[in-house]
Amino acid sequence: MEKFVNTIRFLAIDSIEKAGSGHPGLPMGCAPMGHILFDEFMNYNPKNPYWFNRDRFVLSAGHGSMLQYVLLHLAGFDSVQEEDLKSFRAWGSRTPGHPENFVTPGVEVTTGLLGQGMANAVGLALSEKHLAARFNKPGYDIVDHYTYVILGDGCQMEGITNEACSLAGHWGLGKLIALYDDNHMSCDGGTELIFTESVEKRFEALGWHVVFVRDGNTGFDEIRAAIQEAKAVKDKPTLIKVRTTTGYGAPNKANTTSVHGKVLGSAEVEATRKNLGWDYEPFQYPEDVKQHWSRHISKGASLEAEWNIKFAEYEKKYEDEATEFKSIITGELPPYWEKSLPTFPPESPAMATRNTSQQCLNALAKVLPGLIGGSADLSSSNMSLPETFSDFQKTTPQGRNICFGVREHAMAAICNGIAFHSPGLIPYCATYLAFIDYMRGAMRTSAMSKAGVIYVMTHDSIAVGEDGPTHQPIEHLSSFRSMPNILTIRPADGTETAGAYKLAILNRRRPTILALSRQSVPQIKGTSVEGVERGGYIVSDNSEGNKPEVILIGTGSELRIAVKAADDLRKIGKMARVVSLVCWEVFEEQSEEYKESVLPVAVSARVSVEAGVTFGWERYVGVKGKAIGIDRFGASAPAVRLYEEFGVTVKAVIEAAMAIC
Amino acid sequence: MEKFVNTIRFLAIDSIEKAGSGHPGLPMGCAPMGHILFDEFMNYNPKNPYWFNRDRFVLSAGHGSMLQYVLLHLAGFDSVQEEDLKSFRAWGSRTPGHPENFVTPGVEVTTGLLGQGMANAVGLALSEKHLAARFNKPGYDIVDHYTYVILGDGCQMEGITNEACSLAGHWGLGKLIALYDDNHMSCDGGTELIFTESVEKRFEALGWHVVFVRDGNTGFDEIRAAIQEAKAVKDKPTLIKVRTTTGYGAPNKANTTSVHGKVLGSAEVEATRKNLGWDYEPFQYPEDVKQHWSRHISKGASLEAEWNIKFAEYEKKYEDEATEFKSIITGELPPYWEKSLPTFPPESPAMATRNTSQQCLNALAKVLPGLIGGSADLSSSNMSLPETFSDFQKTTPQGRNICFGVREHAMAAICNGIAFHSPGLIPYCATYLAFIDYMRGAMRTSAMSKAGVIYVMTHDSIAVGEDGPTHQPIEHLSSFRSMPNILTIRPADGTETAGAYKLAILNRRRPTILALSRQSVPQIKGTSVEGVERGGYIVSDNSEGNKPEVILIGTGSELRIAVKAADDLRKIGKMARVVSLVCWEVFEEQSEEYKESVLPVAVSARVSVEAGVTFGWERYVGVKGKAIGIDRFGASAPAVRLYEEFGVTVKAVIEAAMAIC
Repeated sequence: MEKFVNTIRFLAIDSIEKAGSGHPGLPMGCAPMGHILFDEFMNYNPKNPYWFNRDRFVLSAGHGSMLQYVLLHLAGFDSVQEEDLKSFRAWGSRTPGHPENFVTPGVEVTTGLLGQGMANAVGLALSEKHLAARFNKPGYDIVDHYTYVILGDGCQMEGITNEACSLAGHWGLGKLIALYDDNHMSCDGGTELIFTESVEKRFEALGWHVVFVRDGNTGFDEIRAAIQEAKAVKDKPTLIKVRTTTGYGAPNKANTTSVHGKVLGSAEVEATRKNLGWDYEPFQYPEDVKQHWSRHISKGASLEAEWNIKFAEYEKKYEDEATEFKSIITGELPPYWEKSLPTFPPESPAMATRNTSQQCLNALAKVLPGLIGGSADLSSSNMSLPETFSDFQKTTPQGRNICFGVREHAMAAICNGIAFHSPGLIPYCATYLAFIDYMRGAMRTSAMSKAGVIYVMTHDSIAVGEDGPTHQPIEHLSSFRSMPNILTIRPADGTETAGAYKLAILNRRRPTILALSRQSVPQIKGTSVEGVERGGYIVSDNSEGNKPEVILIGTGSELRIAVKAADDLRKIGKMARVVSLVCWEVFEEQSEEYKESVLPVAVSARVSVEAGVTFGWERYVGVKGKAIGIDRFGASAPAVRLYEEFGVTVKAVIEAAMAIC
Repeated sequence: MEKFVNTIRFLAIDSIEKAGSGHPGLPMGCAPMGHILFDEFMNYNPKNPYWFNRDRFVLSAGHGSMLQYVLLHLAGFDSVQEEDLKSFRAWGSRTPGHPENFVTPGVEVTTGLLGQGMANAVGLALSEKHLAARFNKPGYDIVDHYTYVILGDGCQMEGITNEACSLAGHWGLGKLIALYDDNHMSCDGGTELIFTESVEKRFEALGWHVVFVRDGNTGFDEIRAAIQEAKAVKDKPTLIKVRTTTGYGAPNKANTTSVHGKVLGSAEVEATRKNLGWDYEPFQYPEDVKQHWSRHISKGASLEAEWNIKFAEYEKKYEDEATEFKSIITGELPPYWEKSLPTFPPESPAMATRNTSQQCLNALAKVLPGLIGGSADLSSSNMSLPETFSDFQKTTPQGRNICFGVREHAMAAICNGIAFHSPGLIPYCATYLAFIDYMRGAMRTSAMSKAGVIYVMTHDSIAVGEDGPTHQPIEHLSSFRSMPNILTIRPADGTETAGAYKLAILNRRRPTILALSRQSVPQIKGTSVEGVERGGYIVSDNSEGNKPEVILIGTGSELRIAVKAADDLRKIGKMARVVSLVCWEVFEEQSEEYKESVLPVAVSARVSVEAGVTFGWERYVGVKGKAIGIDRFGASAPAVRLYEEFGVTVKAVIEAAMAIC
């Protein structure tokens, strides 16, 4: 065992030393648990990192990435070859500073932001429990795997971890096993400075089973026994608190803050080699260790082959279930799914877009087997509960409505975990748009790691009214338009809501924010699903030759203001075009010709109207145009009054237009 | 007691009914604890809501605002008169939907975003413990008050609450008393759907004393005894779990989800009046209740008068301490404080702005008695620990360096609490800029509620390098430039860092973000503190008559790129101006003349350079200009390589300039 564990330690040390930066402390301290997990407990197929029924592993303490890379390397994953270890943290390498699922097959989720991984793991374990309940049949446990996490003190302190773990306990996620690297060191010094709570008691309070491993450095049997115990507890997730020494083996730097995030340096590396009796050159390790690990390739192939046989039988016996299941594990959407989306002719009644969203969710729930989600305790306000869904709960895990409670950050990160469990799981989550700030960390991770989570964000403006400025989004649209690889869609009516859902469902590799109104909005003549698919389009126009005198641009609930203003301007003889700029990111991706056909460069008389900050609108209204919006926080008052007081009105649009055209 | 408590219930009901919206459930359920707190335990002076030594009260469950308004009204605060109760949630009223400290004197902090209030309360209690340790003398407990909070299930589920309460336990904030409105109802239904952990055990694990009140509806003695017990425990904060019924007294709606956030409706109001035997007209209540409460005006005046006498004696005995103390309680900055700021002549060595920031903090720490703050476990990376500060800890509360641990969200919200404790407390907090997303909810609250917190955000770009995209800010500057009432300052060198601190310290009513470099940057000729105070200014120019051929605009570590590009352009005969746009918000506030003198409208050849998204730069580079930035997530590689790969280079700036001028 010593040899196995030291192989991990030194491959990590050598890679970090070669890179000239990195975090040696964790790989050295967690090598024993890492080895035991990957070599003795976990099921996976190194030659197919995406085999459905693999055990999932999450390194929530992502700075210890080298532990994960070395384990993937030893286990035989093609993504981490020796040259990848040697190019740790280099431009274009498959071994970036923190684990990135979109770079390295075998890495399940992207970690580095502390706490995210723990919450992702809850999402992975939830997915397993849900899919198992939905699809397993007597004799056919086609969904049956564990989710393992390694997390550190940093993860433990983050609020998101408590949120996620409270839910994991509530849901009784028995196949979630978290190993807590309890090394008593933080960046600023010993944890006694900042972290003196009883983690065991807190996890017991959260409904977890807790095991304590007193010697995580050399107590291999203890670690094994703890994992076995954890697997035996079926109705609760387990936290294994493993007492370790950060940088174990480094004679002068072990158990110091410096070993956390700095290279050991050649002198200390030599001293560590001596101390642990390691006589190998950098990147070299015993042949028998290589031999020992090599069995995972055949073992993995067998595991997958057995599963394939079992599933082939299942498919014959349970045809319908298998069809749904295959859609979930392949990500292939059922044919004609988009035909299910409701239509909203202009003559249909005014309706809040949170309600038209509800209709879309109801429709999609019936045709998309992978659709699953819920709200942070606001489902009846967000209108986010499809009528055919029942609650996912401890004893009813087949339900597809997830009650997240008031835990926005964990909600988003759990949805990331769900998205990464299976390509066909389509997670959505809902709260008020003003509360989106609470989950921004997880949403950035959605965007970066290409998780197609759908964020159903209702109450999207000052139209919230009386609840006041804490509940009124102002800068939120702009702040997400700033973020790469996420779509911010603000539909104006039912038709655009359907278009928004179509875009969101099709974008499986980037997340979508749907900004939806609390208040009723009319169905607008000229809106279209196709228009939404282009991000921005002409809703109405009375000009010719692509030469309007003025272009009025609106989004969401303010599009109707632009429409009304245009009507009035046309009555006095103006040639006015109305453009819906429902999704800036998608509009930017259109051809230059298309963009010119909507917003011709020659027309500088442009007015935008949106109940949010004007920041960023310069892109579309230009130097001569005028952006009408709200560059201050909101206020508590009836919505109609607020629109008047803040000047987001038809009158203001007309005045602005008249001043420039 | 029944009469007192029903007075609160019905004033709340009547106000909500009149407003036509609001949250009756909490005021009806929490009226008993509210009454007992405000009438029997709390020290305050209704005629001076800002009296220093008052007990602080925070309604973390801010939707129950009507409870707080009624209590302020009964206690005799001028801010909540009968007409204010009657204008609940109306435009311009002093009784907005959720408590807002900037609208209603007597309201300590702004709540409504769940969990914020609990964390603010930890900041208030920390401030008391700190100031008491620093300033109290034998016989002169000039700092001596409690901090009370009411929080609900929603607050309890939020991760920020666990973060803040873990710290409160660690710090042993014995004078923090939290009453948990345990009503078993959430918006989506009973808490058994979403919240089944043991809150008592969790708080015990966090190091709190926990008391359970079995009957919070009518068990007045039990509530009293619990608060007394809490006050007797000096070394731990106390959580009093009070079992209540939401909407208590409403015969048909009590203990339902509908009573949480909807008006009762006239029929149910009548039924409630009957049920509780309340024969008064709307807004009427018994004369003897009025009488009973009236004593708080004289009591409050006496409390303040006694304190003033004591403080006058203190001032004579402890002159130096009193001078510092007065600066803290008045917010008056010591004369010439800004002279302490370090200077960085152009010839001084290159240095990271996180290091020049450290020098500023060192200097300010000596002259600003109210400066207090710390880092989320990154003080040695953030360079945020002034050399003269010792750690604030349970047994050393006089220390001014707060070790927050890896709890960014609570850190920011605790700083809000510190800012609101005393006008002269100047809280700062530090982490990496990429982690700012975790605390955005609290930062929006800083901005909205006018808390002058200083956010020391280091590692402000892809120059972070090898740690990769999770650690590299890209959209963060833009996303905060979108937010109202917060300054985003990105200094280019030491001089601008000093200017940034000057701006930040002077802005006591709005928060500041300092975006600081990890990497060394040169001291630039032409930068100035005065320039920073104007937000944007000319760093160098070889044009005349305000007619440069091209304007190069940079911020932070990229200003030097603009400077170098301008040098090269001038060598080939171009008239190039370099502008540092160090703080957009402040630049926008300058006169039109000044702005024209820096960025003349006639000059459309403009190039900006910033290692972040180009979103928003259209405002300054216009339609014809070019923004050089990074519109994708970063990558793990050495910083120099990243700048090259992403094209943020002198060459790119020169090419862009040549293409348009």
